[in-house]
Amino acid sequence: MSDTTVTAALLIIGNEVLSGRTQDANLLHLARVLNEAGVQLREARVVPDVETEIIAAMNALRQRYDYLFTTGGIGPTHDDITAEAVARAMGRPLMENPEARRRLETHYRAAGLELTEARLRMARTPEDAILIDNPISSAPGFQVENVFVLAGVPKIMQAMLDHIKSRLRGGQRVLSHTVSCNLGEGIIAAGLGEIQRRYPQVDIGSYPRFGASGSFRVAVVLRHTDTDLLTTAAHEVATLIQHLGGEVEQITVDA
Amino acid sequence: MSDTTVTAALLIIGNEVLSGRTQDANLLHLARVLNEAGVQLREARVVPDVETEIIAAMNALRQRYDYLFTTGGIGPTHDDITAEAVARAMGRPLMENPEARRRLETHYRAAGLELTEARLRMARTPEDAILIDNPISSAPGFQVENVFVLAGVPKIMQAMLDHIKSRLRGGQRVLSHTVSCNLGEGIIAAGLGEIQRRYPQVDIGSYPRFGASGSFRVAVVLRHTDTDLLTTAAHEVATLIQHLGGEVEQITVDA
Repeated sequence: MSDTTVTAALLIIGNEVLSGRTQDANLLHLARVLNEAGVQLREARVVPDVETEIIAAMNALRQRYDYLFTTGGIGPTHDDITAEAVARAMGRPLMENPEARRRLETHYRAAGLELTEARLRMARTPEDAILIDNPISSAPGFQVENVFVLAGVPKIMQAMLDHIKSRLRGGQRVLSHTVSCNLGEGIIAAGLGEIQRRYPQVDIGSYPRFGASGSFRVAVVLRHTDTDLLTTAAHEVATLIQHLGGEVEQITVDA
Repeated sequence: MSDTTVTAALLIIGNEVLSGRTQDANLLHLARVLNEAGVQLREARVVPDVETEIIAAMNALRQRYDYLFTTGGIGPTHDDITAEAVARAMGRPLMENPEARRRLETHYRAAGLELTEARLRMARTPEDAILIDNPISSAPGFQVENVFVLAGVPKIMQAMLDHIKSRLRGGQRVLSHTVSCNLGEGIIAAGLGEIQRRYPQVDIGSYPRFGASGSFRVAVVLRHTDTDLLTTAAHEVATLIQHLGGEVEQITVDA
């Protein structure tokens, strides 16, 4: 791994994802934002609202990757235990953050709502946490060392991520080229494996999809930081497809 | 944990989920099917197409939970390495499964397509694996001990899961009642925590959502195996909401 590779993991905290109540939308969004920032998402885990589970996963992930993001469990109810879990995992006391409290006071006063004791729980962070703005409902997320604690509600999670993007020290950005064709995976597999062997540094993935006729078609995705290398390798994939009698339907470049 | 609690984990294998190319749909579907079968999904992980990562996650999860399901990585291309990884993780040789080969031969003959060497890779399983039917594209999944290896394409994954549902020895089914109301989490939180303390065995979750006016509303989800207990606890939640001046908008029973 070169010095310019920056990695991250995501820890999704929430019974509702594991029970099938809620479709997670945060992984996809985080992956895309991180990719733009030059950070590679390498692992994700979903754990229930159980403190020991959260702490174990958090410690495994924050030590292994450059950044750890968590989503979920920072609301005002009894099942919101992420702040406590982070404090315990990182050996810091949990405290009421004065700036977080001030933001909640302002928000609820303006809304004509009572800042209940339960809502005040959302002002608690581990000691010396850096707050993450929440422009939607004011209750902040927070950063402690390399751990970023975000809300679970996608709209708020996305706003928080916007706010911290500039804090992330990204490495080289991984670019991708996608070559779509009208052949099945089983037809291009041998030649594609050959190309992968000649370009071991390029991450080449093959993704089947159903064609109109019910037959499989395939999208080949090539990923690397070097756009020239990608262009060359993608050209080889396109040539392979044509040699096999197929048609390259589309080449997409996400640069 | 009682004898009648049966647990499971899901291991999602695929760079495409971590890169933000693909929105996973298998976790949600698996969670719902398992729930109906009386199996509780307790953890999920997403790892890249890297053998050491797959093996490490697989061994951690299959030892800890009653069942482990994997999705992805069983196609014909070079990046499909799940079968090898399972064989290595479980200390069994990887072999060509004669019945799997027969199915592929039948399928490709009927389709007038060549059974290429790459496609034949899909006949490989760890020794003594039990096949899992694939009614869509024939290439089977397989079971080894408590590990079920499924396709990543949702349509195929779902068909495979249909096929194996009857093999799962479920425990008591976790039922849920959902009480939706027009109050915010911060209003009901104290009383809800009180109810949780009186019903420690019931899993009570609180999920905010945006109301029409931009304010937060909340759905309280109660989960337990005993429907009478759930009815009683849900009634207490409804009473709490009314005492607080709120309106119970809906009580949903997924029994």
